Amino acid sequence: MILYQDKLVVETGGRGTIEVTSELAAIVAESSVYSGLAHIFLQHTSASLMLTENADATVRQDLETLFSRWVPDGDPAYRHNYEGDDDMSAHARSVLTTSQLSVPIIEGKLGLGTWQGVFLWEHRTGAFQRSIIVTVQGEMF
Amino acid sequence: MILYQDKLVVETGGRGTIEVTSELAAIVAESSVYSGLAHIFLQHTSASLMLTENADATVRQDLETLFSRWVPDGDPAYRHNYEGDDDMSAHARSVLTTSQLSVPIIEGKLGLGTWQGVFLWEHRTGAFQRSIIVTVQGEMF
Amino acid sequence: MILYQDKLVVETGGRGTIEVTSELAAIVAESSVYSGLAHIFLQHTSASLMLTENADATVRQDLETLFSRWVPDGDPAYRHNYEGDDDMSAHARSVLTTSQLSVPIIEGKLGLGTWQGVFLWEHRTGAFQRSIIVTVQGEMF
Repeated sequence: MILYQDKLVVETGGRGTIEVTSELAAIVAESSVYSGLAHIFLQHTSASLMLTENADATVRQDLETLFSRWVPDGDPAYRHNYEGDDDMSAHARSVLTTSQLSVPIIEGKLGLGTWQGVFLWEHRTGAFQRSIIVTVQGEMF
Repeated sequence: MILYQDKLVVETGGRGTIEVTSELAAIVAESSVYSGLAHIFLQHTSASLMLTENADATVRQDLETLFSRWVPDGDPAYRHNYEGDDDMSAHARSVLTTSQLSVPIIEGKLGLGTWQGVFLWEHRTGAFQRSIIVTVQGEMF
Repeated sequence: MILYQDKLVVETGGRGTIEVTSELAAIVAESSVYSGLAHIFLQHTSASLMLTENADATVRQDLETLFSRWVPDGDPAYRHNYEGDDDMSAHARSVLTTSQLSVPIIEGKLGLGTWQGVFLWEHRTGAFQRSIIVTVQGEMF
């Protein structure tokens, strides 16, 4: 069994999604794991990770519309607003999605479905540097 | 350490939940892992996985009611509607729940709580064939 | 590769969050794993786990406000209400958050971000005893 750990740093440019599938695939290739799991962990609480369709960008635009409806920025009920109107909404969007997930590795590649991609979702309106810890576990054969 | 990987194919019959706990338990038994983790990964973005109560089916009926309220089919705001009114809502329900999860293996069995079951939740109104990759890691003793 | 499994029992005092980060860190230290993953699994369907900001408690107060808005107690649409007005809402809050997650272990410590904590979120209004299974996998060096 191999254990391989690496860090991926992503520069975001305000609220929106950034696909990280190919960066993760490169780390899996680097690990030499043929069969196992790749765990992806975002070290932040105002952005999140998401598995969703990667073919049509309107899916992610519609998700943005829905999350903006569920979690409005600057809601008068929020007590946590030190960093602005998008501060608390970013934490709530993070909790409704996820900060960590694992993808199976099958024959040396990420075992994603045909239309599945892994996305980092920046929930703050400003630009941030986001760190993702990737932990790969498995066998070489 | 053992690594065992298998695929579970589930035929769905339209929107609704299908319990897959016993199928997962069978794969864990097949793996011979006594202590470890079973990772369950759905290779689709318009269905999802869920850990919830398996005793009373009204829990899942009420979840259906709540998700239909939060994520209406055919919302006029959706841009992604190629496959019909349930297309975008299925993606959003998937993101609000999860596509992957791990369950501990304790003494050779899934370490679920007394009332916990693992469910596949089909979010499309049509019938689909859904693939789940199960990756079991752990020790034989 | 080491596999280490332990159980954490938490007494809750009604709806609200309880940080369990230091209890998890203690189990990781006990495991002697230097590089790997700690998987945390809650064996219940009316409470959940959450990764969120641990610095300012108003984040969790605002999350409580938002979840109470999305999932009202005693909604007339609920069929599942055997255990009271908070029964079905607790299951729905559990499904919207998560029952399980993994945190990377880096140099023998939980690889959380600066402001990240792991919380148990009790969704029932009464006090319960909640069991968390912790499974640590990794290498000693």
